[in-house]
Amino acid sequence: MSAAGVGGAELLSLVLEFEVEKGGTPPGTVGRAIHALFFEILRELNPDLAEKIHSMRPYKPFTLSPLLGEGEERPSFPLMEGRRVYLRITSIWEPLSEKLVGLERFPSSPLSLGSLSLRPLRLITDPSHELVFLSSYREIYSRCFLEMKEIPRKILLRFTSPTTFRVGRANLPFPLPHLVFRSYADRWNSFSNVHLGKFGDEAGRWIVVSGYRLKSRVVNLGRGKRVAFVGWCEFEVRKGAPEFVRRCMRLLSEYALFCGTGQGVTMGLGQTSPSFLSGESTSV
Amino acid sequence: MSAAGVGGAELLSLVLEFEVEKGGTPPGTVGRAIHALFFEILRELNPDLAEKIHSMRPYKPFTLSPLLGEGEERPSFPLMEGRRVYLRITSIWEPLSEKLVGLERFPSSPLSLGSLSLRPLRLITDPSHELVFLSSYREIYSRCFLEMKEIPRKILLRFTSPTTFRVGRANLPFPLPHLVFRSYADRWNSFSNVHLGKFGDEAGRWIVVSGYRLKSRVVNLGRGKRVAFVGWCEFEVRKGAPEFVRRCMRLLSEYALFCGTGQGVTMGLGQTSPSFLSGESTSV
Repeated sequence: MSAAGVGGAELLSLVLEFEVEKGGTPPGTVGRAIHALFFEILRELNPDLAEKIHSMRPYKPFTLSPLLGEGEERPSFPLMEGRRVYLRITSIWEPLSEKLVGLERFPSSPLSLGSLSLRPLRLITDPSHELVFLSSYREIYSRCFLEMKEIPRKILLRFTSPTTFRVGRANLPFPLPHLVFRSYADRWNSFSNVHLGKFGDEAGRWIVVSGYRLKSRVVNLGRGKRVAFVGWCEFEVRKGAPEFVRRCMRLLSEYALFCGTGQGVTMGLGQTSPSFLSGESTSV
Repeated sequence: MSAAGVGGAELLSLVLEFEVEKGGTPPGTVGRAIHALFFEILRELNPDLAEKIHSMRPYKPFTLSPLLGEGEERPSFPLMEGRRVYLRITSIWEPLSEKLVGLERFPSSPLSLGSLSLRPLRLITDPSHELVFLSSYREIYSRCFLEMKEIPRKILLRFTSPTTFRVGRANLPFPLPHLVFRSYADRWNSFSNVHLGKFGDEAGRWIVVSGYRLKSRVVNLGRGKRVAFVGWCEFEVRKGAPEFVRRCMRLLSEYALFCGTGQGVTMGLGQTSPSFLSGESTSV
């Protein structure tokens, strides 16, 4: 995940810094408010682009984290006046990435969340920040399919915000391999030039869970509660699997950093951070 | 789960107490050794019954826990000479239950586990012990289908020993509702007079996971490693489900205490303890 140069970066993970203008506790449905804020920002940037993104189906080309503290997964509430809070924004589509990364100052009016008011300060695009990453479809593809000689059989994904899948009419709060990797492949296929096929079926056949520590979190996005999970899960390609499966698992795991996992990734859910393991096992 | 009277108890959860005769650390494949010990005991009790149980397919009518400490899920190893350790034994079949519950003294030669030697002391059948339960198919059925007026929509299951499901050629270490409840229904249908049908399909349609905290555990039963899980999971019947689904979920959860969950229940896996919730939510 080295920097691809700001010019050619189609895949972005950036951080928007806020100052608390008026202290308070955000409402339960903060994900929906953050989503609305982002569209406000987009409209200020470029109304046509905002309109286009708003109508994109089935996948929108960005993800948003929940409110983050400084180095914390979630800040403790209530937030005091003057405090800094952060929002991680990713883009997986070049037209949006170009707009975001070219910004000098992040224009927007304050974000109201119930009684709380947050003033956007700046968009952090410096790759030395721990949450900032710049890459491209080509870079990830080249690394995973052309440059890497040995592909490890295991990868570990950290689900750093509540994550869930929609299956039928219910939420399924477990990272089943076919759901996880189909979630990435569908987005990859929607936004890249290289089509990977319906990788979900391959993942279901060849990728197994080799370890995890997960717990549920109930989230409210404003249309009823959803049961989601946070924690980590390690995936392993079974012996005998085609090399394509290993390379694809690696590629999609790198992509997960940008595209998020499962449902509600534009409203704070599904933030995902991959780790790549060299050895054969992790402590469980 | 009150006592049904020792005479009529088809469903048993009893505890076998051992004294460490020669200290040491059990091998990794202790589940297989415990399984072998139990068949040794059965053969001493009644060779014909042992032979019959040995050939029963696909389900054997008992479960065995891993080695337990006094009030501990697992004793710490190595075990010192003179220390007491415990094994929970369940029976879900009347001919076996009759033999077990009628015992005055538990006959067996010492159990060798690698360098460790365990001498069976006694079989604890007193229902005041926290792991001893006596019930019957009729008792559970009557309570869940006839006596209970209100059936809560939620139940919580604690998986107190590593639990896993076999799906295709791989282990699936998540308590998906259709796997969990099919596991119970298949055993219930094999050993009771009341047939519940293939409840797995109903469970998949109507029962969702409403909360959990789980982590993986790698276990070795002597034929390769398996990835399993321990922890708790709460299940909820969706609104609009037929009353049969609620009653059946309750019945099977009570039965889970005796029949265990998933694979390897005769070798220490899948020990399960249900809790019944009166309210609508638990803390997650």
